[in-house]
Amino acid sequence: MLTSKNKVIIYAQDSFGGESAKTGIGFIKYGLCETVAVIDRKLDGKTTSSVIKDLLPIPIYDSIQNAVKYHKNADCLLIGIAPAGGKFPLEWLPDIRNALKLKLNIINGLHDFLSDISEIKKTSEDEGVYIWDVRKTNHKFPTANALVLDYPINVVLTVGTDAAIGKMTVALELTKSAKAVGKSAKFIATGQTGMMISGDGIPIDAIVGDFMAGAIEEEIIKAAKQKYAFAFVEGQGSILHPAWSGVTLALYHGSVPNKLILCHKANYEYLRNTKIKIESLKQFINVYENISLPVRKAKVVGIALNTYGLDEKQTSDLIKKAEDETLLPVTDPVKYTAEKLLNACLNPK
Amino acid sequence: MLTSKNKVIIYAQDSFGGESAKTGIGFIKYGLCETVAVIDRKLDGKTTSSVIKDLLPIPIYDSIQNAVKYHKNADCLLIGIAPAGGKFPLEWLPDIRNALKLKLNIINGLHDFLSDISEIKKTSEDEGVYIWDVRKTNHKFPTANALVLDYPINVVLTVGTDAAIGKMTVALELTKSAKAVGKSAKFIATGQTGMMISGDGIPIDAIVGDFMAGAIEEEIIKAAKQKYAFAFVEGQGSILHPAWSGVTLALYHGSVPNKLILCHKANYEYLRNTKIKIESLKQFINVYENISLPVRKAKVVGIALNTYGLDEKQTSDLIKKAEDETLLPVTDPVKYTAEKLLNACLNPK
Repeated sequence: MLTSKNKVIIYAQDSFGGESAKTGIGFIKYGLCETVAVIDRKLDGKTTSSVIKDLLPIPIYDSIQNAVKYHKNADCLLIGIAPAGGKFPLEWLPDIRNALKLKLNIINGLHDFLSDISEIKKTSEDEGVYIWDVRKTNHKFPTANALVLDYPINVVLTVGTDAAIGKMTVALELTKSAKAVGKSAKFIATGQTGMMISGDGIPIDAIVGDFMAGAIEEEIIKAAKQKYAFAFVEGQGSILHPAWSGVTLALYHGSVPNKLILCHKANYEYLRNTKIKIESLKQFINVYENISLPVRKAKVVGIALNTYGLDEKQTSDLIKKAEDETLLPVTDPVKYTAEKLLNACLNPK
Repeated sequence: MLTSKNKVIIYAQDSFGGESAKTGIGFIKYGLCETVAVIDRKLDGKTTSSVIKDLLPIPIYDSIQNAVKYHKNADCLLIGIAPAGGKFPLEWLPDIRNALKLKLNIINGLHDFLSDISEIKKTSEDEGVYIWDVRKTNHKFPTANALVLDYPINVVLTVGTDAAIGKMTVALELTKSAKAVGKSAKFIATGQTGMMISGDGIPIDAIVGDFMAGAIEEEIIKAAKQKYAFAFVEGQGSILHPAWSGVTLALYHGSVPNKLILCHKANYEYLRNTKIKIESLKQFINVYENISLPVRKAKVVGIALNTYGLDEKQTSDLIKKAEDETLLPVTDPVKYTAEKLLNACLNPK
């Protein structure tokens, strides 16, 4: 529902630059088509690169009307915010209605489906534009049974100490690095942002419990049949976070990975919104390795450290510390490259 | 949608007595209303007690028509089979249509919803009867955050080496034993059969990934607010079975149990339909205890051994063996009582 020809406006009202805007930021960096504008009235007049280093400079506007005025080729409004639980704030509805009347298609990754709101659906039909509710799926998935083992594909899963710390980005960077050295590698999207970016994948956290693992199993087998040698799977949540651990484990056991890359946000001490302390990287390595399926024991082979906002010295100190603790290769694949982690994935051991 | 006054016919065509009929068998034993007949043409003319020891003798018929002829007070047809994946076999549809025309309400726990089939729905409306698709839920669940910790309720979760080995039954027997010694205890249903039996609970495997843990959290808090001192939660699946482990973990982390009872089917060597070996009870005790939330470490305090079909000598040998291996209290709470396991749950340690 999104091709390389689309021109996207990202909706991140009052939130761009914040953590909840990870969908929009991810899309700007990795999306398969161009982002022409961002909506955030608090940052009106700025550009994205003045808010977040490393981004292309894209103008930010206070309203959809103003963005469209300056970017007449825009044809999609992408909801660029992902609050926990995926609820759609009702106060955004007037903006959505406006966007439809301005002939923008809507790309929505939240759990609340805009196409389920009859008035919004009717407006989209009247205006001749579409609504893509990324998490809405009518496909019937099978139950899983470690069938990935029957295919020669190498599966690398990015797992994390917490949610929203960059597991998708690490999988994207690994895929990029693998392609750069001539490997046939596929990024497997498992969340709304990844799906928007790649135009493919499964919305695993929106699939009913019994079929989550089967959905990712099917997706990896699809990649294997397409003759990819490597699948870099976007991980979800955290194995010790009560809100998401079920999804995390379904993804883990459904994809039956050969190797794991553990993602961690430097200096995070507690799991988000909980009193659960992140004791050490070793703690998470142990828990993840312990819970791997006995038919294919997975090992953590490297650590992706998200050091966003830290200076060079702090970054290298933290990388050194993590290497000393875990005796594994550690890097920030966004700040540097994913090569070091890729080598650990390519190593046959 | 089911009260103590209903009279139920259980539909288990070609399957009664087999493992897939666990829904029907569970309902006969523990259901909140009377079962008057069972449908299975292969066992036509027999009674349930001749097929499964310990059941009340309920007549089995080849067809719904014949059952209704002899049991004119029957008002519900309960789909008593739970195939893996919960798919509804289309060849049953003519029987469902007949049942509706015979003025029977339909109780269906499968993932395929009968009320979604427009012709079936229309027939039920025409006949003035209802369809209860137990797994269909429109309730919006929250995401979980270990909020159970804020309430004084004691939570015991039945976990298992595999699926369909009696976790619901163990939770029901524990609840019965707790009530017998004067404890205010609630059975918390998390699957279709448990919900049919208790008229309450959540269909956790039919809830989308992000909200599974929140659903059970909400259910336990409800019980806590009703002033129950103990919640015996029906476990699901197995932490090492790729098809169900995500649901298992969501239930575990959402309910934040104080104690675990590990359920195991004696002599089972492999996880159902997999090449995953059950190495030992210790293996599962370790995996379950390892993956408990750091904010409330849960311990396995007893083993419920399903020794169905084994004689007295074999049973006591296996119980002894499991006790020697685990140094925990072990019993078959169906063959004997759950008292031994209950005592382990009541023990403050």
